[in-house]
Amino acid sequence: MLPNQMVKSMIGRVIRVEMKGEENSLVGKLESVDDYMNLHLSNASEYKGENKIRILGDIVLRGNNIVLIQPFEE
Amino acid sequence: MLPNQMVKSMIGRVIRVEMKGEENSLVGKLESVDDYMNLHLSNASEYKGENKIRILGDIVLRGNNIVLIQPFEE
Amino acid sequence: MLPNQMVKSMIGRVIRVEMKGEENSLVGKLESVDDYMNLHLSNASEYKGENKIRILGDIVLRGNNIVLIQPFEE
Amino acid sequence: MLPNQMVKSMIGRVIRVEMKGEENSLVGKLESVDDYMNLHLSNASEYKGENKIRILGDIVLRGNNIVLIQPFEE
Amino acid sequence: MLPNQMVKSMIGRVIRVEMKGEENSLVGKLESVDDYMNLHLSNASEYKGENKIRILGDIVLRGNNIVLIQPFEE
Amino acid sequence: MLPNQMVKSMIGRVIRVEMKGEENSLVGKLESVDDYMNLHLSNASEYKGENKIRILGDIVLRGNNIVLIQPFEE
Repeated sequence: MLPNQMVKSMIGRVIRVEMKGEENSLVGKLESVDDYMNLHLSNASEYKGENKIRILGDIVLRGNNIVLIQPFEE
Repeated sequence: MLPNQMVKSMIGRVIRVEMKGEENSLVGKLESVDDYMNLHLSNASEYKGENKIRILGDIVLRGNNIVLIQPFEE
Repeated sequence: MLPNQMVKSMIGRVIRVEMKGEENSLVGKLESVDDYMNLHLSNASEYKGENKIRILGDIVLRGNNIVLIQPFEE
Repeated sequence: MLPNQMVKSMIGRVIRVEMKGEENSLVGKLESVDDYMNLHLSNASEYKGENKIRILGDIVLRGNNIVLIQPFEE
Repeated sequence: MLPNQMVKSMIGRVIRVEMKGEENSLVGKLESVDDYMNLHLSNASEYKGENKIRILGDIVLRGNNIVLIQPFEE
Repeated sequence: MLPNQMVKSMIGRVIRVEMKGEENSLVGKLESVDDYMNLHLSNASEYKGENKIRILGDIVLRGNNIVLIQPFEE
């Protein structure tokens, strides 16, 4: 499974994303992803390590600033 | 709804944008967006956390340096 | 008006540009812009906040490292 | 062997990856790679120098934020 | 004159380049430039402000990490 | 000679590379380069200034995170 297909397979699940311009992680339900790995997350929150520090709701993340995507297990 | 369509659906609304080269957030009315997620915001301001610290007016933001886009709720 | 057209509409005017690799702003007359938002500014200067700190003359700015473009009002 | 083919030749092996937005290295089994050098690693861990500090499991790494890829020897 | 043509017009002259991953400026004779603004400089040196601190000789600079290009006047 | 051809002309020679996400330089024999300036180096080492601090062996470097490429003279 190619990396992009791996990400698409996570649609509907909660994922954790590390961004280049963010010290903290973003966690939310993956609603959609395009070929540039731009992501739409719903019910998103910001996590500092294991702790939820801010509720964000709907967010769009720019694909080229993504560092790491991972299924989230609470 | 794909990420880009999600952003397009916010045209006419006030959004908050985090950029890679900016410590603070940018908040303004989304006037237009293109396929690279370049954004044109009107009545834009710079926010440090919850506080408006600078009024910017019309700004253009370069898509590839966007980290996060979010509907803004005051 | 799309973001790129918004930038093109500023040709001949003085603009302020924030770059990813520059702590300070660059201010100059916009001479030209291409599809990648590469910019040619004439009579450019470096600004630290409100203060002009260095005169640069003709400069070319690489589009993908631009964060923010704004009409400049002295 | 071109750089991309070099990476493809490591599929099935454990590799170490340095990312722009990560202080530490990521080590895992290379499952797949695409033309943008996006990577899918399984059994991935985070390494601080020689020490494993966090177990990550399945991760997708964005190609344009990769700095260095190297076969991993424990 | 478009930004890329502006850079091409500097071939044969000494230019100063600011890069994203470099604290200092690079100064050298522009030998060639391509559509991505990759640059080949000869007789290049590293400058810290006004002071030449290191002689580099022939260097290739990656276009997408260029911030600013400027004719150099000693 | 265009920048990319300049890099190709260094195949088989030892080069020094500065990366955006690396404080130190990488030095190794250039085995191959593609159109994105992705590089494959063999017998690579990490250098802190003039001192070799780590032996890396075979490495692949992502082209868009390269800042500077230079022939290496010990």
